[in-house]
Amino acid sequence: MIDQTKADVLKRLSFIEGHLQGIRRMVEQDKYCVDVLKQTFAVRRAIEKMEALMLEGHLQTCVVDGIKGGREEAVVEELVGLYELSNK
Amino acid sequence: MIDQTKADVLKRLSFIEGHLQGIRRMVEQDKYCVDVLKQTFAVRRAIEKMEALMLEGHLQTCVVDGIKGGREEAVVEELVGLYELSNK
Amino acid sequence: MIDQTKADVLKRLSFIEGHLQGIRRMVEQDKYCVDVLKQTFAVRRAIEKMEALMLEGHLQTCVVDGIKGGREEAVVEELVGLYELSNK
Amino acid sequence: MIDQTKADVLKRLSFIEGHLQGIRRMVEQDKYCVDVLKQTFAVRRAIEKMEALMLEGHLQTCVVDGIKGGREEAVVEELVGLYELSNK
Repeated sequence: MIDQTKADVLKRLSFIEGHLQGIRRMVEQDKYCVDVLKQTFAVRRAIEKMEALMLEGHLQTCVVDGIKGGREEAVVEELVGLYELSNK
Repeated sequence: MIDQTKADVLKRLSFIEGHLQGIRRMVEQDKYCVDVLKQTFAVRRAIEKMEALMLEGHLQTCVVDGIKGGREEAVVEELVGLYELSNK
Repeated sequence: MIDQTKADVLKRLSFIEGHLQGIRRMVEQDKYCVDVLKQTFAVRRAIEKMEALMLEGHLQTCVVDGIKGGREEAVVEELVGLYELSNK
Repeated sequence: MIDQTKADVLKRLSFIEGHLQGIRRMVEQDKYCVDVLKQTFAVRRAIEKMEALMLEGHLQTCVVDGIKGGREEAVVEELVGLYELSNK
């Protein structure tokens, strides 16, 4: 990961961890389930945005280098596997 | 949330928090992006399973009580809103 | 399904079928893959909206009747199964 | 799209169209909503598999050619946009 992506991902991870701690407190304090669920949905969306960032970094570096370096078959296969995994 | 669901949800939250710490270490140690992404996919799936548990608890308690108590319109509207939110 | 939901679902199905025929033409005419994919994403979202409508109808009728009729356990179990299936 | 992918995509489209016609009949014949929903979930998964095929074809051809031809920035940007759109 290049430095800028790494810094951004780590910042987002901190935010997600804080969000999960808030959810833990909601559960411990018996907050209404529906309100807890709305927060866990938001965490999943935050993770998805972080994934988009990492994917962008991966495409810009490893994928471009791999294809220019003649390893296109392996690179493409890995990306397709990743896509299928992301939808499971 | 009934006690059993609450205990189960808190246990799963701990597991998810631990998993995210592992992901943080992977990012800090510059592990391969694709491997990091596979782990964030797994965290999202773990959150979804926790959500299914909370939803089950919500249906068994608040939804059943609400419908038996004549507040079916409000209960149904809330569930549909939740479903739409979960797909966004 | 009550008449209003049924009419709405059938109308949406017609729209979705038309959309898929448009996608078929795009594929046959060798349109750019990325443009085809954007259309299949739109079809999936249209199906999801139709599902939300059907779910709403199901909650308003079968679920409410089932819970009022004392079959809450079966009704809740079926809903949870459906939710888990929708995320697979 | 290369010929093999195109033939496979068109075959899958026919299957999906047939599946939707079956769903239409279920709705017209007032089948149980939950059973209809299980079928629409299956259609969405079939569309996702077809998308994975098209994406694989796109990566193997346009993306590889684009990157080798020096248009990596545009190619990567388009892929990231597509990924974000697929999750909406």
